Amino acid sequence: MAGYCGKVLRVNLSTGEIKKEPLDMEVAKKFLGGRGLGSYILSKEIDPAVDPLSPENKIIFATGPLTGSSAPTSGRYMVVTKSPLTGTIASSNSGGFWGAELKFAGYDLIIVEGKAAKPSYIYINDDTVEIRDAQNYWGKLVSETTELLQKEVGDPKARVLTIGPAGERLSPIAAVMNEKYRAAGRSGVGAVMGSKNLKAIVVRGSGKIEPAEPEKTKELLSRLLKKIREDGVTGQGLPNYGTAVLVNIINENGILPTNNFQKSYFPTADEISGETLSEKYLVKKDPCYRCPIACGRYCKVDDEEGGGPEYETIWAFGADCGVDDLAAIIKANNLCNEYGLDTISAGATIACAMELYEKGYIKKEELDGPELKFGSAEAVIEWTRKMGAGEGFGAKLALGSYRLAESYGVPELSMSVKKQELPAYDPRGVQGHGLQYATSNRGGCHVRGYLISPEILGSPEKIDRFALEGKANWAKLFQDLTAVIDSLGLCLFTSFALNADDYRELFNYIVGENYTTEDILTAGERIWNLERVFNLKAGIDASQDTLPKRLLEEPVPDGPSKGHKHRLAELLPEYYKVRGWDEKGVPTAEKLQALGL
Amino acid sequence: MAGYCGKVLRVNLSTGEIKKEPLDMEVAKKFLGGRGLGSYILSKEIDPAVDPLSPENKIIFATGPLTGSSAPTSGRYMVVTKSPLTGTIASSNSGGFWGAELKFAGYDLIIVEGKAAKPSYIYINDDTVEIRDAQNYWGKLVSETTELLQKEVGDPKARVLTIGPAGERLSPIAAVMNEKYRAAGRSGVGAVMGSKNLKAIVVRGSGKIEPAEPEKTKELLSRLLKKIREDGVTGQGLPNYGTAVLVNIINENGILPTNNFQKSYFPTADEISGETLSEKYLVKKDPCYRCPIACGRYCKVDDEEGGGPEYETIWAFGADCGVDDLAAIIKANNLCNEYGLDTISAGATIACAMELYEKGYIKKEELDGPELKFGSAEAVIEWTRKMGAGEGFGAKLALGSYRLAESYGVPELSMSVKKQELPAYDPRGVQGHGLQYATSNRGGCHVRGYLISPEILGSPEKIDRFALEGKANWAKLFQDLTAVIDSLGLCLFTSFALNADDYRELFNYIVGENYTTEDILTAGERIWNLERVFNLKAGIDASQDTLPKRLLEEPVPDGPSKGHKHRLAELLPEYYKVRGWDEKGVPTAEKLQALGL
Repeated sequence: MAGYCGKVLRVNLSTGEIKKEPLDMEVAKKFLGGRGLGSYILSKEIDPAVDPLSPENKIIFATGPLTGSSAPTSGRYMVVTKSPLTGTIASSNSGGFWGAELKFAGYDLIIVEGKAAKPSYIYINDDTVEIRDAQNYWGKLVSETTELLQKEVGDPKARVLTIGPAGERLSPIAAVMNEKYRAAGRSGVGAVMGSKNLKAIVVRGSGKIEPAEPEKTKELLSRLLKKIREDGVTGQGLPNYGTAVLVNIINENGILPTNNFQKSYFPTADEISGETLSEKYLVKKDPCYRCPIACGRYCKVDDEEGGGPEYETIWAFGADCGVDDLAAIIKANNLCNEYGLDTISAGATIACAMELYEKGYIKKEELDGPELKFGSAEAVIEWTRKMGAGEGFGAKLALGSYRLAESYGVPELSMSVKKQELPAYDPRGVQGHGLQYATSNRGGCHVRGYLISPEILGSPEKIDRFALEGKANWAKLFQDLTAVIDSLGLCLFTSFALNADDYRELFNYIVGENYTTEDILTAGERIWNLERVFNLKAGIDASQDTLPKRLLEEPVPDGPSKGHKHRLAELLPEYYKVRGWDEKGVPTAEKLQALGL
Repeated sequence: MAGYCGKVLRVNLSTGEIKKEPLDMEVAKKFLGGRGLGSYILSKEIDPAVDPLSPENKIIFATGPLTGSSAPTSGRYMVVTKSPLTGTIASSNSGGFWGAELKFAGYDLIIVEGKAAKPSYIYINDDTVEIRDAQNYWGKLVSETTELLQKEVGDPKARVLTIGPAGERLSPIAAVMNEKYRAAGRSGVGAVMGSKNLKAIVVRGSGKIEPAEPEKTKELLSRLLKKIREDGVTGQGLPNYGTAVLVNIINENGILPTNNFQKSYFPTADEISGETLSEKYLVKKDPCYRCPIACGRYCKVDDEEGGGPEYETIWAFGADCGVDDLAAIIKANNLCNEYGLDTISAGATIACAMELYEKGYIKKEELDGPELKFGSAEAVIEWTRKMGAGEGFGAKLALGSYRLAESYGVPELSMSVKKQELPAYDPRGVQGHGLQYATSNRGGCHVRGYLISPEILGSPEKIDRFALEGKANWAKLFQDLTAVIDSLGLCLFTSFALNADDYRELFNYIVGENYTTEDILTAGERIWNLERVFNLKAGIDASQDTLPKRLLEEPVPDGPSKGHKHRLAELLPEYYKVRGWDEKGVPTAEKLQALGL
């Protein structure tokens, strides 16, 4: 067996039972692995209507067949569960090394069931698998937990995945962290770990992932590395400035949401740009497992240092809060990593709270901290800390922007889709990307079909960002291809340089298969439809394929996207049609049958 | 003041006195910093005839004005002292983060004098500087020492520079290590620390290095990053495969020394190539401070992992010992890092011992370990360990190849210049590079003027590697420019993509000066001549500007360089002339005066 380990670890925290099961290879190849395979297992094993924070929900840590292999960026894994933030199926992706280490230990994925009686962690060292007491770590920050666990297991090279205090307290915007500051950030997957009393999973493995066709793989890798190097985004932009290279680019297109999407242009964006980050705070690049791009940053402010910040984080605590103090943003990012909070949702929730405060919904008397004013660096740092610590009004913020705004009777001021905060691109200036926001299977999300790539960056070709024509097709193609990449265990960023043929070859040579490019893309479509069906069963229907009212009704007030609204109503029917769904957004029986679902 | 901190730390281990002195800015700018400034101070403060391992020798840890700045690859520092291996002035370069951290703490350089009564370490945290007891760490391996010291100072982010057991035992091939596996490897600088009972220097700083001209610097950095990305070596070869990308290239040119330079072509080189390393053992890239190239590798064999191996290391334990087992080479590399041994000298000494054994000089009865046979992976690992531990016959190997071969009456079997082992390029196939070996101011060395660049890699232009014409000029130019780069605090690898004009601009914008390109190159020439004068005073004269007899008299037996010898006698007079030295290789009074020496 090549690529896959062929083994699944099942841990029941209620009963303490640990089982090692063979991987069903037919199913594995049908859903590829990672997000696809994890979603299939979740769909099969839980009732989609289950309470996400109940013991009946499961949480799956799933690698892909290329995770841990010699393929570029093969350090990725997925956390698959039902989301407490959105109520949808969620699969949050993270890089670093943990996923590869799980493969080295011999497992394709871990299915965690039930709920432990007391705080616990799972220890895996090749064949040894134990559920261990974690009471001493409960309440501890992520970096301290990581170091203490490495000490307890006596191996400074053990890879630690953990939640912080936010996940313990079941914040629906809590992240799962690994290697201290890599995050499976979105959709509140950290709260599901917390609800199971599962603090951490520590992994160490001594195996290797060998390709089925070593010579062909070697030749292919050499060719793909060249493509990655020679592409403008993966060879220049990301390596030089990290994801923050986008700050100026996105702002110059007038789609950098500012002050909770009230504006789309931030005049002092360069103060928080990748160029400025590099000039003032960068310590080093900090690449994930086998990554030739190395967009990861490691920065230092005063005597505080750590991983990141990413573009989305800089935007959330920066432009979206009207803040142009990069040092403050780095500090807020570090706090999120320590408490285990999703930076996008955390920053966007503060931005929403600022609008609620400035409009008089939140009263000064409610606040046990700084005034929530746009532009206040102090507010951003202190409220992030209080959100993480669940302190006073911070506990309310930790519910996320939708529940916050809803509690004041104005849910429309939450800039979210399916209750998940939108990322750093104003859809009014990128119609295709907006369609993608509205239809993403895990709510407001930019990494389920990154149409910024053709609409702004011109990859694989430049298309008119304000036009509607063809956007439904683009959305489907990008969504399906992304499902493939997420399921293989690679980083989405490779797709700036690689195409479906390249992924097919990687899969075929490493796993030892003969998939056509169509086979691969069909697998992506199968995964997308599987997720859609889960959501429909969970009660999330087409009525939630929408965008915040502001983006549909209020034109952008100024900047390079001035005057535009998002024209979702014109796009959605076409999208359903392209998908082979009925007018209510339900996959037809024919479609499901064609996909083997 | 920009670029420089303007402050020198002087620590006398005999008296315990710690002084903070202002940096003489006029002298600093004349010698730039790092290697140049350190060499000037050493020349001024010690008698060049001093015993390198006596308390009268000093050891200087010197950063450059660009170290810790936002310039690319600005994590470098230099260890400057009189070498116990060569008797010359030595300055060994290392990357990682320690050098930048020293600048953040506020010091351009540390001058260490005398000898502590007991094992000690120096602790620096911004203004706090202390000499502390290190008896608990004496005898400990490098990674354990690093972790224990970080724990003692209560800061996992403190940067630790340390020696291993090899340096404590005064092995003349002992290295100074930082961040566990970064090495100021060559010329036995680790033994000088050992002779002073100085185990380590722990640094933490909270300051920043601001450029004199922020706007111009930002624009310049953007331009230089582009050049670095677009160059074939710094943008493709080194990022994709690390320095080990050279294995196949150098072998295909028939200049990969094999079996202690008895041959120059290694048929199974691909087994130990960068491509194979990447395919089988690479975990991640591991870049130094602010490095856009990220050639650093981090590899894993079984459950053992660590930094490297570099090309030179792979060659030394590999082709030079006739070994094509990459896993064994990685293990030998890890042992060198743990015991604090220079990998080039360690590997080349084992290769020399193998020839001595196979030729009957070393007898089987002398060996308390595996037979010293070319091709034995077991011998390479076990003798490296014994060398590091100073165990049995390993203690004799730890003296280096020259002293070893000399003890059997055949010093000519040591492939060294000025007693320092030659690196991984057979000079018979690269005439300019061989001239450079013979004239290097710290003995056999490839990083004092890397003529492999034009002679093999075609950068900045391709020149005939077997020809003699123009080679003296090339040698001088590369030697002078390298002295500049080493003194500014940048990595030599930038020079594949950047030229003297670029370095001048970096210096001018960050420091706030108006040097011409000629000024910069003259500073390099000044440094080279200063080192030469030191060596002459130390008794190292032109008679030592030579190569091992084998390389001058025996033609390469096979492979792409077959039939060639090194024609040093034809090159050396021209080189002295180009240098403005007399026929005995002594700088003329006019030359010294012109350089302001």
